[in-house]
Amino acid sequence: MRILVAGANGKVARRLLPLLVERGHTVRALIRDPVQAPTMREAGAEPMTGDLEDDCGEAVAGCDAVFFCAGSGPHTGPDKTLDVDRDGAVRLIDAAVAAGVPRFIMLSAMRTEAIETAPEKLRHYLRAKKAADDYLRRTDLDWRIVKPGRLTDEPPRGRVRAAESLAGEYGEIPRADAAAVLAAVLEAPSAMRRQIECIGGDTPIDEAVAAL
Amino acid sequence: MRILVAGANGKVARRLLPLLVERGHTVRALIRDPVQAPTMREAGAEPMTGDLEDDCGEAVAGCDAVFFCAGSGPHTGPDKTLDVDRDGAVRLIDAAVAAGVPRFIMLSAMRTEAIETAPEKLRHYLRAKKAADDYLRRTDLDWRIVKPGRLTDEPPRGRVRAAESLAGEYGEIPRADAAAVLAAVLEAPSAMRRQIECIGGDTPIDEAVAAL
Repeated sequence: MRILVAGANGKVARRLLPLLVERGHTVRALIRDPVQAPTMREAGAEPMTGDLEDDCGEAVAGCDAVFFCAGSGPHTGPDKTLDVDRDGAVRLIDAAVAAGVPRFIMLSAMRTEAIETAPEKLRHYLRAKKAADDYLRRTDLDWRIVKPGRLTDEPPRGRVRAAESLAGEYGEIPRADAAAVLAAVLEAPSAMRRQIECIGGDTPIDEAVAAL
Repeated sequence: MRILVAGANGKVARRLLPLLVERGHTVRALIRDPVQAPTMREAGAEPMTGDLEDDCGEAVAGCDAVFFCAGSGPHTGPDKTLDVDRDGAVRLIDAAVAAGVPRFIMLSAMRTEAIETAPEKLRHYLRAKKAADDYLRRTDLDWRIVKPGRLTDEPPRGRVRAAESLAGEYGEIPRADAAAVLAAVLEAPSAMRRQIECIGGDTPIDEAVAAL
């Protein structure tokens, strides 16, 4: 498949790129800053410079699937969170629909449906993510929403606890494993128009995704 | 599966470790120097310090499969090549047989069966590799031999040209893709007691391995 990864320099996305390449996909890496281009090429992806706050038509053109892995990051203000995490996602979803890209995979987060259980300082971010998820669900796209728990830089384990809903259970997951879940949901028929919540656990990732 | 990777700090093996971990395997990384242990842990593997010139029984104990990815490297003398690339492999094969480990995957090289086509300075190395491959083929193990062309540090492409024999065709392959071929042959029924020659090409790796 020809795949766009938006927010390709993010910490999860950087781990996702080689997993997609090794599965034989052709990967276009959307980055804001051309200085990140060599890192994208080293991962086997083709860098494309662009901004999710602008038109995304060129970025999605000719793609079979799009990953939204962008995030404004924890050090920007609330306006930027709305601009990128919500409006950037909406703009990319609109572009996918307009261009006839059939599949859209969203890197979301746990607790967007239980915002009151999260610390106050995360709630604005989670509301923005929820708005983007809800917008995506209302499309006719083959959407797939990945909702990891608290992301860590721990080594990958290749194993998770995952389900459409973990029923309020919360926990940590290494970014490398969250990336592997994203890669796994891309092609799994079980993941079509489904969400997957995931934290650290004992089930091999492919098996957890197949059981959705 | 529980898997031993011998020579785990090698340039191909270091790329293999996370691929195995992400497939849900438990990976034991055999290294000579404890200073390499943190790198192994970061890749999600459990380091074990040991020397292929000693007894390998402890290293293979309890494993479902063994990868031999060790090499004496280009900067050692001819004696060391025999000690590691040939005798180290033989010792590990013997240990696998003795311990009842069913599967053994060898990182070999192209041209071991056409040594006269290789530059003079490589021939001693290729003879050592051939002796190890031949020894492995004579066992009753479920062996799988991966023979990449000239290894490069280019970005992964996820695509190869591969077959039991490429009929004398030679070429380059990124180490990252050679690692992906090793990971793919581990579980593919098509690879049982087969060898696979691989260079850069256009076939997705899983597809190439399934077609063996």
